[in-house]
Amino acid sequence: MFDLIILGLGPGGFEAALTALRKGLSIAVVERDKLGGNCLNRACVPTKYFWIGAHYIEKLNILDEYGVHITDYQIDYSKAWEGKEKNISFLRKSISQLFKAKKVPVYKGEGKIIDKNKVEITKEDGTKEIIEGKYILIATGSKPIAIGNLVPDGKYILTTEDYMDNLKELPESLLIVGGGVAGCELGYISSRYGTKVHIVEIKDRLLPVPFISMEVSKFLMRKFKQLGIKYYLETTIKDFSIKDNKINVSLSTDEILEVDKILLSVGRKPNSDIDTIGIEKDERGFIKTNEFLQTSMDNIYACGDVVNSPMLAHVAMYEAKVAVHNIISGNSKKVDYSLIPSAIFTALEVGHIGLTEEQAKEKGIETVTGYFPFMYNDKAVDEHEKEGFVRLIFEKETKKIIGASIVGSSASELIHIIQLAIKNQMTAEELHEFIYFHPSLSEIFSYATYDVAVGKLF
Amino acid sequence: MFDLIILGLGPGGFEAALTALRKGLSIAVVERDKLGGNCLNRACVPTKYFWIGAHYIEKLNILDEYGVHITDYQIDYSKAWEGKEKNISFLRKSISQLFKAKKVPVYKGEGKIIDKNKVEITKEDGTKEIIEGKYILIATGSKPIAIGNLVPDGKYILTTEDYMDNLKELPESLLIVGGGVAGCELGYISSRYGTKVHIVEIKDRLLPVPFISMEVSKFLMRKFKQLGIKYYLETTIKDFSIKDNKINVSLSTDEILEVDKILLSVGRKPNSDIDTIGIEKDERGFIKTNEFLQTSMDNIYACGDVVNSPMLAHVAMYEAKVAVHNIISGNSKKVDYSLIPSAIFTALEVGHIGLTEEQAKEKGIETVTGYFPFMYNDKAVDEHEKEGFVRLIFEKETKKIIGASIVGSSASELIHIIQLAIKNQMTAEELHEFIYFHPSLSEIFSYATYDVAVGKLF
Repeated sequence: MFDLIILGLGPGGFEAALTALRKGLSIAVVERDKLGGNCLNRACVPTKYFWIGAHYIEKLNILDEYGVHITDYQIDYSKAWEGKEKNISFLRKSISQLFKAKKVPVYKGEGKIIDKNKVEITKEDGTKEIIEGKYILIATGSKPIAIGNLVPDGKYILTTEDYMDNLKELPESLLIVGGGVAGCELGYISSRYGTKVHIVEIKDRLLPVPFISMEVSKFLMRKFKQLGIKYYLETTIKDFSIKDNKINVSLSTDEILEVDKILLSVGRKPNSDIDTIGIEKDERGFIKTNEFLQTSMDNIYACGDVVNSPMLAHVAMYEAKVAVHNIISGNSKKVDYSLIPSAIFTALEVGHIGLTEEQAKEKGIETVTGYFPFMYNDKAVDEHEKEGFVRLIFEKETKKIIGASIVGSSASELIHIIQLAIKNQMTAEELHEFIYFHPSLSEIFSYATYDVAVGKLF
Repeated sequence: MFDLIILGLGPGGFEAALTALRKGLSIAVVERDKLGGNCLNRACVPTKYFWIGAHYIEKLNILDEYGVHITDYQIDYSKAWEGKEKNISFLRKSISQLFKAKKVPVYKGEGKIIDKNKVEITKEDGTKEIIEGKYILIATGSKPIAIGNLVPDGKYILTTEDYMDNLKELPESLLIVGGGVAGCELGYISSRYGTKVHIVEIKDRLLPVPFISMEVSKFLMRKFKQLGIKYYLETTIKDFSIKDNKINVSLSTDEILEVDKILLSVGRKPNSDIDTIGIEKDERGFIKTNEFLQTSMDNIYACGDVVNSPMLAHVAMYEAKVAVHNIISGNSKKVDYSLIPSAIFTALEVGHIGLTEEQAKEKGIETVTGYFPFMYNDKAVDEHEKEGFVRLIFEKETKKIIGASIVGSSASELIHIIQLAIKNQMTAEELHEFIYFHPSLSEIFSYATYDVAVGKLF
């Protein structure tokens, strides 16, 4: 009997394995698909890979400024796709090598919990095997959902997973349904690699997610326009038909579009059909857990997209650590979602932590804010990355930092500085007097705190 | 009479101006050279500009992996030099526009303090003008020093300032005297733009500065070898002669080198010859200040390279804020040098904060450390930036973080995360459970804390 069976080897499952192994547990992992899960193989990691490529394509225009004169070049997405595969295989291999070195059995197949201590694995060849564990961690993730009559067929109507797994050549034109994070990321990428992109969004702005302020949405929408990415707000798909390899789409606005493919990015649902023993789920299919990430069975824990918390790889990884801790040390650590960073890689890099002004208002918190554009940051100017800004949100009374949005170079890294500052309840003055390396992008925080910490210039 | 006269408009002077203006002081600034000082015009900012260019030259090899196939290109350093000038002028202009908008008089000329409230300015045409101020801030910076018989002539023997101001074409070969920060930065840049580089260093390693651990030095020396940058340790220049436009150099090892130019990067001395009223200086010429940055004259303060503190732009900027605060609020803020980040842009980016293992040992602090290579960081793999590592230093007893060295992608930004963690006395466990965005480079801290926070894997 293993100490711990981990169902699903995505970012949550892998982090759980790392923690459990370091704590000396004997573990087994069950995975029906590729090691690394959706995150490594079809989402977080490959989208950043393509984003870096897309960003280089934009950069080709300014390389002359650094004395690098490119006389001729071609863009070939299929090479980027191969590069992405190479990178992912390297990372997958590093996972399997680690398991080999630590002698961790990896069961390839569909796992089902058939008893509180038993997992039945159905392998690819149909054979079954049962393994036993004192504890089980469910980390089986999620899958894309479809919408209305737009049923993914892998050819004309694609999920984001089809996009990553199979789309080795980009179509000439692409209609993306859903202007959320995935839609805006893949829309930007496809557009830079040469596809004519249309994004249809039911709400009144792109990135209509709570952590993205209207200020950030508007900034990005302007940039999308500059880049020739078309978007249609407060719009849905009324109907579509396929003829001669083209999709004819009529929008709710009665506009007609002809595109080669449709990409659905309208959300995901939990892979929670993993047991026959009645583990409790909520009405949306998420596995119910308490604040220790324990399910309705006391030796079974769950983490990641399969539970009802933000569907983010880093949340899964954090939850995995907490769950394994609680397995070992008996429910002594409560899960805390109060400070989760977000980042989006689209026309520009976006980072967010804490509250937006809108969210603070809803909570009845009076705020003051600080602002600084990358345009006057020496390092950003050195990088030819003048676009973007930081907006810092402080509680008015205490001048404590409570939130930040960053649009621009390295936003997804810089955001952690403010995350640490919020965690440690730092004030505008403390952030202002903090010594940032010069020249660094991080100095935006020195300047964005000036108004609140010292006084206004104008 | 002005509230404050600022002598020298480098990073310290400019930061002082920003703070003073926000506090409503009437100010005048005096600058004999270009606005922005050495930092903006000849050091921090342009070296990063060239480093970005040099890094792009290295990146050309991997663009194919992103589907960007470059069929032909040329490297032309003179275009990079022009790009650098354009960038710097943009930033200089933003300074002068701000002064214009705030109606701050900028006196162009050599300033001399001739009375505790009077500065005499000698303008370029030889005319003199005297202005009066309640307070004076000396922020006049430093200049390069020569060594032995190597006297800069602007043609064969160059200072780092000659390099930045006048070297529009790089020589075929360059001998750099001094393997410290500036030598290693300009050595890398020149080498990537096509120059054969030799670095002569008197000590037994490159970057022989206290905040660079032996581990980091060795890592970089290996990389220099790979890049074909030659260095000669425990070596000095014995003699040299110039003939037919070539410099014949004999080293202390009796090796003979023939190079086109010699670049001196052996240190700097303060520009402290700025008064006739006996402001106290130390034996090395630094202006003496108390812990409030007040000189021996009670209405005269000093900051930056001209005082005896680390010669870094961000230290000058920090001191400027403290000095202006003390001018306004009567010596109520002591200067605190306990947490100053360092970064170096050479064959790889290097960041450091707090103590190295060596330094902790000297202080009698028992340590444990954590390590993680960029090679297994998903974002670094996405970036094709697998080289480098982070080394975290913890106090053994408390597991509190006390230092970090980072070699690799974005080291100069990431270092601030650990700087904040040290400031807030965070432990390995707190840094480990902190939620880092996935995938981000910042996640190296989640993995480098595993050994100390959770337990070892092997």
